[in-house]
Order: sequence, then structure tokens, then C-alpha cells
Amino acid sequence: MQIVTAKQYKNEILRVASIQNDTKIDQAVLEIIADVNKNGDAALTAYSAKFDCVNLDHFLVSKEEIDEAEKLVDSLFLTAIQRAKENITQFHEVQKEQSWFMNKEDGILLGQKVTAIEKVGVYIPGGKAAYPSTVLMNVIPAKIAGVESINIVTPPQPDGKVNPHVLAASRIAGADRIFKVGGAQAIAALAYGTESIEKVDKIVGPGNAYVASAKKWVYGDVAIDMIAGPSEICVVADETAKADYVAADLLSQAEHDERATSICITTHQQMAKAIQREIRKQAEHLERQTIIQTSLKQNGRIIIADTLHEAFELVNEIAPEHLQLMIKNPTENISYIRNAGAIFLGNYSPEPLGDYFAGPNHTLPTSGTAAFSSPLGVYDFMKKSSIIHYSKDALQAASNQIITLANTEGLSAHANAIRIRKDDENAPI
Amino acid sequence: MQIVTAKQYKNEILRVASIQNDTKIDQAVLEIIADVNKNGDAALTAYSAKFDCVNLDHFLVSKEEIDEAEKLVDSLFLTAIQRAKENITQFHEVQKEQSWFMNKEDGILLGQKVTAIEKVGVYIPGGKAAYPSTVLMNVIPAKIAGVESINIVTPPQPDGKVNPHVLAASRIAGADRIFKVGGAQAIAALAYGTESIEKVDKIVGPGNAYVASAKKWVYGDVAIDMIAGPSEICVVADETAKADYVAADLLSQAEHDERATSICITTHQQMAKAIQREIRKQAEHLERQTIIQTSLKQNGRIIIADTLHEAFELVNEIAPEHLQLMIKNPTENISYIRNAGAIFLGNYSPEPLGDYFAGPNHTLPTSGTAAFSSPLGVYDFMKKSSIIHYSKDALQAASNQIITLANTEGLSAHANAIRIRKDDENAPI
Repeated sequence: MQIVTAKQYKNEILRVASIQNDTKIDQAVLEIIADVNKNGDAALTAYSAKFDCVNLDHFLVSKEEIDEAEKLVDSLFLTAIQRAKENITQFHEVQKEQSWFMNKEDGILLGQKVTAIEKVGVYIPGGKAAYPSTVLMNVIPAKIAGVESINIVTPPQPDGKVNPHVLAASRIAGADRIFKVGGAQAIAALAYGTESIEKVDKIVGPGNAYVASAKKWVYGDVAIDMIAGPSEICVVADETAKADYVAADLLSQAEHDERATSICITTHQQMAKAIQREIRKQAEHLERQTIIQTSLKQNGRIIIADTLHEAFELVNEIAPEHLQLMIKNPTENISYIRNAGAIFLGNYSPEPLGDYFAGPNHTLPTSGTAAFSSPLGVYDFMKKSSIIHYSKDALQAASNQIITLANTEGLSAHANAIRIRKDDENAPI
Repeated sequence: MQIVTAKQYKNEILRVASIQNDTKIDQAVLEIIADVNKNGDAALTAYSAKFDCVNLDHFLVSKEEIDEAEKLVDSLFLTAIQRAKENITQFHEVQKEQSWFMNKEDGILLGQKVTAIEKVGVYIPGGKAAYPSTVLMNVIPAKIAGVESINIVTPPQPDGKVNPHVLAASRIAGADRIFKVGGAQAIAALAYGTESIEKVDKIVGPGNAYVASAKKWVYGDVAIDMIAGPSEICVVADETAKADYVAADLLSQAEHDERATSICITTHQQMAKAIQREIRKQAEHLERQTIIQTSLKQNGRIIIADTLHEAFELVNEIAPEHLQLMIKNPTENISYIRNAGAIFLGNYSPEPLGDYFAGPNHTLPTSGTAAFSSPLGVYDFMKKSSIIHYSKDALQAASNQIITLANTEGLSAHANAIRIRKDDENAPI
């Protein structure tokens, strides 16, 4: 892993304005969406055959299949996922917002009514790996929000079944339905509905490039959570950090994806060298070595900052998905952190703790979007309506000012809606 | 205005799956974005000449220009906009979220840190009309959130100036800078930066089809508020409503745009007829008659529902931007309303009251998106970071369960980041 200065790294990341769309993927995805739109379930069957190599004419996972899955997974897994569920639930319950109102002079009542989104779709990636933690992190906040219909879509395995860990986690999390459909076709089905899959209001969850493209295309017709990019970690380490811990954490991020980014910012040259050595040493023993090596070579950096202040500035510029502060007094220093998806404090809060267990959501803004977005949360499954009540007297008192503003904007029918009440001698109370 | 039954209307609105993109506009917009990206201010100068017919080589509105504008607008306007500002501020202050944390066993600290987005761009439409109310509704929530840099962009008039009402409102609202740039080029400048306009993190505010397309294209590189469609009103009226008030309110919506939607749902045949008559009568005296007639003919409907219950169901299906409940006990009935941008209660809460004055935001979800989105608010200018701190003991206690979950997902380097701490006999505290 390369060691560079903060200045060098800044030049490296000077993000070039993109507007990059992979037009080949976009084109394929648009065709799939149009096809699902027109042919419904028949199109889903055709794509399952084509992409997942299975013949399916119905997609809903049965109660029996979930019962079977629960028997297949081991009890340690079930205990761990139950405990994770408790932690995730406890954290997310604090996020639930309440409706509120305020009263003002003359019988004015204003407020904000908060309601759950009614129907939600959750994409869970499949293929080689299974992601039961993703099930919990997406379903539990929706459940706490009060979403009435939570629908998971996930690609079938070649045997036409769904990974048992995903099924078991889905039941534990409280999903209402699971459908064996993946890819852009699953997003299209959720966005527009088919005979067997109901149209939803919002689609959340991670997926490959086709899923991401499909989410971007249906955005507006339904809501989406975010378009997730490759995962990132940034560790800020001072002389109190343990180099072997830092190295392990950087490696854990690197194993996700060749495009993952693992960086460490340190104020100590010695520490930089020690981490570099540890990375080399530990990497040898890890299973996903090829991915790790590619990822570290492309995007892995150990960055030397002159001061912690410079380190924090760089963090805010990068706006990392995961930030670990392995420094003296980490909690006292979070006031300097402006942009980060999740902040892990101290030597015993490695990122996998947050991925699986601690409670906060693992769906986090990537690619610098932590500068303007938040972790997935209960708030993503709720929406607000404003409430306005004016009494006759209150409107009377405000009439002239509203008419002035409406006329300034050239909207005389707006002014008229006020005037007809103001001038009504027989106005009821 | 046509009278139809609830059933007839439901069939009429059965929304056809869209994915409609105006490719001609999209193409033009993509070229503009690429050009601004490459040529910066020079491109802005060229587009100002082409689209706004003015020659500009700098875009920042000077302090002197704002001073001059304040002298041009009349004092009634200034008083009204000041009062509106107070109301908007008072309502939005309640929306400001606080950071929070929780402590758990064994020295666990979890939390959510809330911070303002740093830099925001606000698009204010120009051209024939001026929208000072839009300035307040976008700038004030950003200001309350704590946004450090609020940048308005708005098209110049043919004389190279900006409408004085917009300038006066911008100063009152507290914008930091105003630039004379409009259209897709303004969105591009905000998203990627030019020599004179700083790149922002989020772009909000309404605009024409080119602005909307540009916002859709830059989405992801920056955050955007929403893609606003044509405005809508839905009035639910029982026998206690006043037909002339209802008619005036429907007309006020219709004057916005030929594509605006004004509908009334009533349980009373007599009321339907009376509203129809009133619309005909009042429309004759309104300035924007051509727009109003087209809009009412295309999208205006009076809908007969059998019961209030049926009316509320239809409302939730439509998810209107503005909803007026002109019924007996309106406040008690908001529990039946699930999907609506803003809910106006009773005879004296007409929609223009909310557009200009009452306090809640007038930027509301349109085209049925109230089913999954909220009015613009302080929350749109803030973002959250999760906080996770585990002590040595707490991580030790959780280690086995985290390792189990990591191994289930096939991520052994994740497991390793936990194990290296768990097995470390010399682990510091």
C-alpha cells in the first residue's frame, strides 16, 4: 500500500466532473423495464431463464420454503441475527419522528403530520454470496416506520431457491413477502407492478450496475434510497493506534470489491510504515486475496498529514462512507467531522461491528455523497404533510399582505381567493 | 368544469407507467452541461446571449444592485415579505433536528450527529414573472439548517438586471450570493463550478423543463430537492362548504399553468352544480383566463363521491400536492388522510394562504409523489452521521456473534478485524 502526503492525495482525488452513464447498461436496462411493463410476469419468467438459468412461473417464496430454510441454517447464526435485530431495532426506534402542531394567535393551527410510506420494495443481492445483514438493515427501519407492505426481491440460486440465510433473516426482520426475482427486471416489477408483484412506493437496497441503473430510471415514478457506489473506509490514526488493528480494518474493506477504497490518514511516519508492513503480513492469510490486492493497489493509500487538523480537513473533503477515529480522545474530536456516513470511535469499534451488529444502519452514503446525504433510516420510510388551519379572523388579519404578495407575482386568481372571503359580508364563522 | 363520479375519475387517472423522457430536451441539456463543465464562465456568457438576450461577462449581483432594488419595490411589499419571513421562520424552526446519543452496557455509546449541508444552490425562475415567495421558501429553511453558503441563480431580464422583488426578498431571506444565470447552464454551474460560481452540494428550487432535466442529470454528483411537476389542488367539500370559495380556490390553482390540475370531490350533487356555476361566473373576471380555461378543460373535474370515506380514499390514491378539507370538523378528519403535500383545513385556509404566508413550505411533492415524499424543509438541508463506540469489553462480548455473521457472508477479512482484537493478549484498554 502506497504512502503519500495529504497534498498529493488531494490532487489525486480532485474529482473530475462526471455525468458518466454507461450507455450500454442503460440501454439494456431500459429495454428490460419496458418489457416488464408490457408483459408482466411473463417477462420475469423469461429473464429468470436468461440471467439466473432457472425456470420459474411463480415468484413468491412459500411459507414452507422459509420453514425449510430455518432448519438449514445453524443455531449460532440464528442467535447472532436475533441479537443484531435487537440492537438495530433499539437504535432505529429513536429515529421515529412524531407529528407535531403549534397554535398561534386568532385560532391559527399549523403542524406537520408524519405518516409511513405504504408499500416498499427491498432489493437483496444474491448470486454467489448471501447478505442476511442487508435484509435486517433495510427491513427493520421500514418496519419501525410502520410500512404496511414490505416486499423483498432477490435473485434465485441455480436450483430455483433462495439462500436460506436470507430467508431466515427475512422472517426474523418481519418482511411481508419475498420474491425470487433479481436484476433490473425486479426493480421494474416493483416500480410498475406485475400480476404477482404489487407496485410499491419506494425501492431500497443495494445491487449491481444493472440494478443501480434501473433504480435511476424508475426514480420519480417511485422513490429510491440512493445509488450506492463501491464501499470506502478512512481510518485516522495517531501514535496511540495499533498498527495491526488498523491494517485488519483496511483489509476488511478491501475484500468487498476491487473498486473499494481503503485509506488511512496518519500524523506519524512510523505508524504509516508499521501499517504498511502489517497489511503485507496479514493479507497473505486472507481468502479474498486477489480482490484485496487489486483494491489496495488501485485505491488503497496511507496518507501522511502534518497535523490532526489537516487530517480532519481531508476527511471532510473525502466525505467517507466509513470513518474510524483511532486517536486519543476520539469522541471529543467528532466536532471536527462534518462529512462522514458513520464514525467509529477508538480501538474497539472496527467497521465490521457496524456492518453487522452495533445497531446503526450499514447502508451509508458513498462516493463523497456523505456531504449531502444520510445513512438509511426510519426517516427514509416516512413522509410529512403540512397542516394549515386559519380562522376567519386570522385570515382577515392577513388578507392584505397575502393579496399584495399574490399581485406582485402576477397571480390575480390567487388574490381573488383571499378577497372573496375578505369581502364576504355573510361569511360564516 | 366537468362533473364525474369517483369511479369514473379513478379510471381516468389510472396512471400509465411512464419512463417518459423528452429526449430532445435531454440531449440539449447534456450538451449545455458538458459545455459549462469544459468552458466555465465563457459558456455561461454564451448561453446568456443566446437564451436571455443579454451580454454578461460577470454574473454576481452587486451590493449596489440590491440596494437599488430595495428602493424600487414598494413598502407594502416589504412589510408583507417581512411578515411572511417571520411566519416561515417560526414554522421551520420546529423542524430543526438535534444530534442524539444513547449509552448501553459495557461502555457502548451510539448516536446520530446532525450537521448542515455546507453549500447550497437555489434556482429561482425568472422570465415574465417574479417569484419572491420562492426565494423565502427555499432560502429560509437552508438558513435555519445552518447552511454556510446559499447561492441563488436566476435568469437576467433583457436589461441585464434581476427583478427587484426577487433581489429584495433574497436579502431579507439571507442569501449569500445571487447570480444572474438561468436555465440548464445555471444548474451545471452549481453542480460542477465555474470560475465565478462555486460548486455546491445540493440544488433546490423549481424551474422549466430544461432546469428539471438538468437537475435529473446532475443528481448523484450533487443532491437535488425534487423534480416538480405541474401544480395540483384537490378540494374535498361537503354541504357546509361555500361554493364561491371552493370555485375561487380551484381557479387560483388553474391560473398557474395549462397543465395544472384543479379537482373538487364532493358528496353533494347540489354542491357540485353550484361550484360549476361559480367557476363559470368568476372565471370571466380573471386576468389569466386562457390558461385557466385550458387547464380546467384538460384536468379540472368535480367528482361526486358517495361518502366522505370514498372521498378520502380517492384523495389518498391521488396524493395531491394541495388538499383543502372544506367539510364539517376538518381537523378531526385528517386522520383519514395519508397522502398529501399540505392539508388546508376549513373555509378560511385557502391554498394561496400557504403559498405566501402561513409558514409551512410551498415547495410540495407533485404528481402523486406525496405518497413517498415530503414538503421541502429544514431536514432537506441537514444530514446525519452515525456514531459508534464500543469499549474493549463490549467488543469482546459481541465478538463471536459478529464473526459468525461475517463468515456467513463469506467475508473473512471482516471476521479477522474482530478476531485480531479478540485474540490480542496485549490489547490496550
